Amino acid sequence: MFEAAELGHTIDKKTYDRRAPEVRQALLGAQYEALREARFPIIVVIGGVDGAGKGETVNLLNAWMDPRYVATHAMGEMSQEERERPPFYREWRALPPKGRTGIFFGSWHSAPIVERVFRRASRAELDQALERIVRFERMLTDEGALLFKFWFHLSKAQQRHRLRALEQDKATRWRVTPTDWRHFELYDRFRRVSEHALMRTSTGNAPWTVVEGVDARYRDLTVAQALLDGLRARLVGEPSTPKKSAAPLHVPLDGRTLLGATTASAKVDEARYDAELEALQGRLNLATRHRRFQRGAVVVVFEGPDAAGKGGAIRRVTGALDARAYQVVPIAAPTEEERAQPYLWRFWRHVPRRGKLAIFDRSWYGRVLVERVEGLCSEPDWMRAYDEINEFERQLTEHRISVVKFWLHIDQREQLARFERRKNTPFMRHKLTEEDWRNRAKWARYEVAASDMIDRTGVASAPWTIVPANDKRHARLVVLRTLSERIEASLSRGRA
Amino acid sequence: MFEAAELGHTIDKKTYDRRAPEVRQALLGAQYEALREARFPIIVVIGGVDGAGKGETVNLLNAWMDPRYVATHAMGEMSQEERERPPFYREWRALPPKGRTGIFFGSWHSAPIVERVFRRASRAELDQALERIVRFERMLTDEGALLFKFWFHLSKAQQRHRLRALEQDKATRWRVTPTDWRHFELYDRFRRVSEHALMRTSTGNAPWTVVEGVDARYRDLTVAQALLDGLRARLVGEPSTPKKSAAPLHVPLDGRTLLGATTASAKVDEARYDAELEALQGRLNLATRHRRFQRGAVVVVFEGPDAAGKGGAIRRVTGALDARAYQVVPIAAPTEEERAQPYLWRFWRHVPRRGKLAIFDRSWYGRVLVERVEGLCSEPDWMRAYDEINEFERQLTEHRISVVKFWLHIDQREQLARFERRKNTPFMRHKLTEEDWRNRAKWARYEVAASDMIDRTGVASAPWTIVPANDKRHARLVVLRTLSERIEASLSRGRA
Repeated sequence: MFEAAELGHTIDKKTYDRRAPEVRQALLGAQYEALREARFPIIVVIGGVDGAGKGETVNLLNAWMDPRYVATHAMGEMSQEERERPPFYREWRALPPKGRTGIFFGSWHSAPIVERVFRRASRAELDQALERIVRFERMLTDEGALLFKFWFHLSKAQQRHRLRALEQDKATRWRVTPTDWRHFELYDRFRRVSEHALMRTSTGNAPWTVVEGVDARYRDLTVAQALLDGLRARLVGEPSTPKKSAAPLHVPLDGRTLLGATTASAKVDEARYDAELEALQGRLNLATRHRRFQRGAVVVVFEGPDAAGKGGAIRRVTGALDARAYQVVPIAAPTEEERAQPYLWRFWRHVPRRGKLAIFDRSWYGRVLVERVEGLCSEPDWMRAYDEINEFERQLTEHRISVVKFWLHIDQREQLARFERRKNTPFMRHKLTEEDWRNRAKWARYEVAASDMIDRTGVASAPWTIVPANDKRHARLVVLRTLSERIEASLSRGRA
Repeated sequence: MFEAAELGHTIDKKTYDRRAPEVRQALLGAQYEALREARFPIIVVIGGVDGAGKGETVNLLNAWMDPRYVATHAMGEMSQEERERPPFYREWRALPPKGRTGIFFGSWHSAPIVERVFRRASRAELDQALERIVRFERMLTDEGALLFKFWFHLSKAQQRHRLRALEQDKATRWRVTPTDWRHFELYDRFRRVSEHALMRTSTGNAPWTVVEGVDARYRDLTVAQALLDGLRARLVGEPSTPKKSAAPLHVPLDGRTLLGATTASAKVDEARYDAELEALQGRLNLATRHRRFQRGAVVVVFEGPDAAGKGGAIRRVTGALDARAYQVVPIAAPTEEERAQPYLWRFWRHVPRRGKLAIFDRSWYGRVLVERVEGLCSEPDWMRAYDEINEFERQLTEHRISVVKFWLHIDQREQLARFERRKNTPFMRHKLTEEDWRNRAKWARYEVAASDMIDRTGVASAPWTIVPANDKRHARLVVLRTLSERIEASLSRGRA
């Protein structure tokens, strides 16, 4: 992987002086065009060997492009707020909106490589981290990001020479730290691990460009030209992955679905309800006050048809909790800032800190429900959403965040009765819109989509609970009991 | 202030059982109406004596209102990210958007009171903190927020009694901490300081409601009824402060303004420019690499007419810096999320952390420039913006963030020449819009507004530098020199 970057590439001063101004001006023009179109974000990942010109290149890009629309992120130590969330939280926070450029310096690849070089992570853990990176980058490019990955390379002899040269110059001496020399002693190991990491993360949609770091002119022009070419190709062309038109929804030939097979529950009478509700709320309260609860966090998802009783169930949950411990996140149409980001960005924003619960009233499953059924996104987009959602939830559960998902299930007749009741109750009338009636007409399609979703995203670490909800009391008790059980189980695993 | 809240207020169970459901339903209805209109945010501040039912009341509000549109913030220990910003940063981050409710528990009043009770702050420091609170709350209500402030009170005997009762009940014992008892020993002092704080922060636009905390029924109904009344009054009525129509801009009778009096500079030739630019960039770079620079931060503001050369000057500044140390923030029209917040919210978002520079290409001064001249906000709104801006910048400078403000000044003839050049250069044509020509027609009005702004917001701790910018080279050198000097001065004060 590195051989081609040890050939001693150089560009002579005359060539550089002729080409640099052209490339620079063209790059700036392309940047402005991308900004004006605001169709895709530009993400530049910078990695590589110490002393190979990573910092210089980042500064060069900021000088050649308009720095007002470039944000540079040096991913060093995590802050406390970041440590309390899953590892990719800070990358999600830093993603540039469409039209803008984000430079990720000491990118998401560095940490796993360094961990492995210093033997703090096993080979399997490294591969696991790399697999996670591949998925993250696949999500970025699927979402339309223009992703560049540059790896700056020096041979061992070159690196030694360069570190010495930097040390001898008074103006640059400060830049050579003891860490740099310590890394140098591990050069061979670092090279082996890096090569492995680059191979594993160099995919068709997000290949690495390895740049020989010795000659500054060669380095500068190579990176700038690569950026320019990538930008131009994207600006003139179609989106890189032409989307297939959505296939018609597959409805099982015998009409049987997971949800259609859900049977109604027995009714719970008021006296039993009151007694059980109080007991279950007390139980949930106790579980969230356990000292081990502070070690993890909880994400609760409520999905289900309109009028299924999500709001009422949520209020019975929050009624058991200390208001400081939870946040309810109602999901409506995305805001302007959210629309300029990958789909899951707006959910990452609300990932809870340690000791907290985030309760989602509708959620990231919107993509495979309403967006799928209403044709708001293409088939490839919602098909890949299953993978992205599973990956998102896996990152949560691996970070000791329990993911508890409820599908509140009512049948068509019950929904109609509830709609009529809303229509006739002045106080509730605003809860019923034209859209609700329209959605209702697509009941069968929603049922197929929901059954499909539950099937594809129900995993042991983040299972779905289908709650028969024709009887509200029954539904609320099931929700409280399930949530308590899940939290208690996490406490005994040392999780919350 | 507390006498009326020691009368032993109670509400009997029968009355409560009759009124509570009515109030509860009406409150929920009012909440939904406020949500639908999305005209103003609802901010509820909860303070008071330990054991007086603050937590219960917060939980009650979350139970009686729809918790999906209520966010509760317990302001405990600051996180590292928060500590690196001025004190009100976290309140700004937590403000609810229009239509939503934010409950601030252990609000912004607690910390100054506690600091004073434990004699970690002088009386003068307390008053300074209270003054800051008054300004913050004034800003909130001026921006249209519906602000409620509840103080929960107990007499000394009542507090002792209540803490003991909590301790004796197994279910509530956990809630009494040693801190509570330590605070109790300081009851008299706490009462005196609280009373002083309440008096100082109980203003016409944001009065306190002191609630006797002994009887839960009385407490619950009092708070819920107050919220309901406030919401109803706002929902039916006009905005609470009817805005005067904007008065015509005052143009000095003799036509002389601060900016009109700015004289053009001598031209700088290319050779001198190149030499000085390099020296000044080196100087700036050195200053930002000083170890003491990590103790503070820098905010740089660029304002000036269209085509004054802000972008070019910014590039010369960033060209001297490590890309990881700065962020450039170009200010365009506010996003949807920003429009749902008070004016300064979108600038608070970008307050830099320790050791960083935030460079604003246009800024919060838009309100007293373009918004004033174009009539995009009312006169009372832009008039109060001077106070709010001065307060914002004072919070920055007091937090060791240097505020460096540049007005790049060109005359009308020079602007015309630059517009023509843009029109005739294919590469730059997109930088020139119809709006630029329209703004140009209002040159005199902009000049008056800008002169006024510089006059009213130029303070010793955050002075304006008027940069004659007909000659770009001269302007860039002045910017670099001034910025270097300001940073160097801050380093020698132990600031950055």
